[in-house]
Amino acid sequence: VSGDYEPIDQEFLDDFATLSSFGATPAGGVDREAGSPADLAQRAWFAQWLTDRGFRVHTDDIGNLFGMLEWVPGAPVVLTGSHLDSQPLGGRYDGAYGVLASAHAAHRLNQKVAAGGWRPSLNLAVVDWFNEEGSRFTPSMMGSSVFTGKLAGSAALATTDAGSVTVAEAMADSLGQPWTTPVQSYAEIHVEQGRILEDTGVTIGLVTATWAAQKFDVVVTGEQSHTGSTVMADRHDALVGAARLVVAVRELAERFADAPLHTSVGRFDVLPNSPVVVPREVRLNIDLRSPDPAAIAAAVDLLRTTIAAVSVEVGVEIDLALSHAWDQQPYPAAGVSLAAAAAQRLGLSHQEMMTIAGHDSTNLKDQVPTVMLFVPSVGGVAHNEGELTADEDCLAGVALLSEVLTDLCSEAPAILR
Amino acid sequence: VSGDYEPIDQEFLDDFATLSSFGATPAGGVDREAGSPADLAQRAWFAQWLTDRGFRVHTDDIGNLFGMLEWVPGAPVVLTGSHLDSQPLGGRYDGAYGVLASAHAAHRLNQKVAAGGWRPSLNLAVVDWFNEEGSRFTPSMMGSSVFTGKLAGSAALATTDAGSVTVAEAMADSLGQPWTTPVQSYAEIHVEQGRILEDTGVTIGLVTATWAAQKFDVVVTGEQSHTGSTVMADRHDALVGAARLVVAVRELAERFADAPLHTSVGRFDVLPNSPVVVPREVRLNIDLRSPDPAAIAAAVDLLRTTIAAVSVEVGVEIDLALSHAWDQQPYPAAGVSLAAAAAQRLGLSHQEMMTIAGHDSTNLKDQVPTVMLFVPSVGGVAHNEGELTADEDCLAGVALLSEVLTDLCSEAPAILR
Repeated sequence: VSGDYEPIDQEFLDDFATLSSFGATPAGGVDREAGSPADLAQRAWFAQWLTDRGFRVHTDDIGNLFGMLEWVPGAPVVLTGSHLDSQPLGGRYDGAYGVLASAHAAHRLNQKVAAGGWRPSLNLAVVDWFNEEGSRFTPSMMGSSVFTGKLAGSAALATTDAGSVTVAEAMADSLGQPWTTPVQSYAEIHVEQGRILEDTGVTIGLVTATWAAQKFDVVVTGEQSHTGSTVMADRHDALVGAARLVVAVRELAERFADAPLHTSVGRFDVLPNSPVVVPREVRLNIDLRSPDPAAIAAAVDLLRTTIAAVSVEVGVEIDLALSHAWDQQPYPAAGVSLAAAAAQRLGLSHQEMMTIAGHDSTNLKDQVPTVMLFVPSVGGVAHNEGELTADEDCLAGVALLSEVLTDLCSEAPAILR
Repeated sequence: VSGDYEPIDQEFLDDFATLSSFGATPAGGVDREAGSPADLAQRAWFAQWLTDRGFRVHTDDIGNLFGMLEWVPGAPVVLTGSHLDSQPLGGRYDGAYGVLASAHAAHRLNQKVAAGGWRPSLNLAVVDWFNEEGSRFTPSMMGSSVFTGKLAGSAALATTDAGSVTVAEAMADSLGQPWTTPVQSYAEIHVEQGRILEDTGVTIGLVTATWAAQKFDVVVTGEQSHTGSTVMADRHDALVGAARLVVAVRELAERFADAPLHTSVGRFDVLPNSPVVVPREVRLNIDLRSPDPAAIAAAVDLLRTTIAAVSVEVGVEIDLALSHAWDQQPYPAAGVSLAAAAAQRLGLSHQEMMTIAGHDSTNLKDQVPTVMLFVPSVGGVAHNEGELTADEDCLAGVALLSEVLTDLCSEAPAILR
């Protein structure tokens, strides 16, 4: 990286180190699930950070945390942010980097306004979206889904974790009134979580579209019996049925050589989970992603054939229910051009790319013009304590986001449509 | 069944219905894990039942519950019993039948002594062994293992459940002093948990030996990453590795046509178990049982070969640790003969057989002469709410156990050696 901007910002790096101390794990990651003590402590620190710098802090009715800079009374707002929560034993950068980059970029713009060096047409607000990760409370991207009207707030608040705690209970002291200011546009920066930028030696990814995805909830139902004494032929072992599915899902990825197909099972619950009982039920999720929706459709057909065969061979029932699906979805081309021009001005190498992972911007882009930016991830390591992005790449991202937000806050509403 | 004994005992059936009400489930089973409120309530009811009929109740230092009939001051005791705890969503008969059969048989003998119709040489005690099932607190057969010195009491008391509650905490109000009276012999009756008796139309199984078994704890270690964005070739998916093992363990059973081999995985825990995270670790158990120890040894060899292949192909580490093993173990032949003669006198059909499941008698038989009896299980259904044994078979078992206990309490110490 050798861009046309101040490459060292010790204050940003110090603040990022502080952020990384909330829920810090011995192996260098963070464990900060939504609504956990570590998440709540970090939110409190961040709210104070915003207040100290003149942002007006607002928490909405699902726990999204905003810091508002009202430069033009009554004008719509440009939103920018990401999420502070993490996966269990997750990385320091996923989400938290984007929130802090947004806050620092907004603070820079505010200083420019205060110094009389720039006069925006729109206001700016930083946001920490509640529960992007969805590991403790399902589904993921909960806060931005409620904000964009894709998920009912009442349903989200009633969601329970494994210990039967509801979102409403976990966030009892952190809920406020709904956000009412009109939103003009949205910008988010995130670590790539893949290694395309690293492999190509490019600093900035300009996200043009999401991969298509289909997600399923699966219930395998067998019959509980004694592991020792039950004759093998009499067994209806839900775990054997579910294990055959996991293996089949992995093999699907290898059958699509033309378009990449990413397949996985992440959640897998066995009942009754006793060492001497043949399991009666397994609940699992299946996650299929590809840039090519036809590849996913073909994979689902193969999966249904496998399920029919496994049901008969193992003697179990298998229920496959689509829980979430999206086609390849474009981000606005105007936003990509705007970000490319900004990167050009700063001398930052950049390339267009797709995002495989979902982000809060995936929700926002369906409601308002949205810009999504990536910085490199070392080795593409993600959802892992070893996640890393180089300081210089982090700072290049802050510089670019500042430039993009300057454009978004300056221009007329129609720029991205 | 048409034996030479009183075939109707409404009091036994009523008491059994009462027992089945503790932890009763809507589907007709029971959920009464060791130390749970349902288990403790049932123990209290049973202690009162014993007290009301003149038994002296004693609870030892691991929570085994005894009811003592002291006919001959200072004489050794014949023990008889089983366990009142159940698997989660388990059956009504497993264990509870044997405890109640022992109690009723002992009460009959006590009435005979009181009426002056019989003069025993030994005392008799009924026992409810603590935590035979091992689903909440591992290992199974905990109470009888501590009683027979196979497991340290301190280690057992420190064992935790999934919620970090220790045995000492769960049983805090139910622990007493160690049992000190010399034990002369032991008798246990249990439902078969298989369908050999049903298939052959025989009422009584005389247990001659246990199947051999090897049990393993397995840890599959991969690397946590993002289910969406991580390139398939970069994944080290612990769940895929573990699923391949489950499938391989099932297939082992089909490779041994000569000796039956029962294989299973009952416990299977995935970390972090989040829908968008490639699992970093799976912990599971493997249970292999056969009447032929050589078949188990050969199966373990095949398993090790599979593990080596899966480790390389999936890119995970797999650690296989033997947790428990036993060879085919005989029950004393003299006890089998004694029980056969008693069945003959009552006109009950009977046959010799092995037990595949472990029982508290498996521990006791290594310390004292032990008799193990089975009554039929409808369809061999076990560890399942649908478990059933016909009333007439239950009552035939009580009659036979009364006869066996009469012999054991009458005879000289050497009878079974």
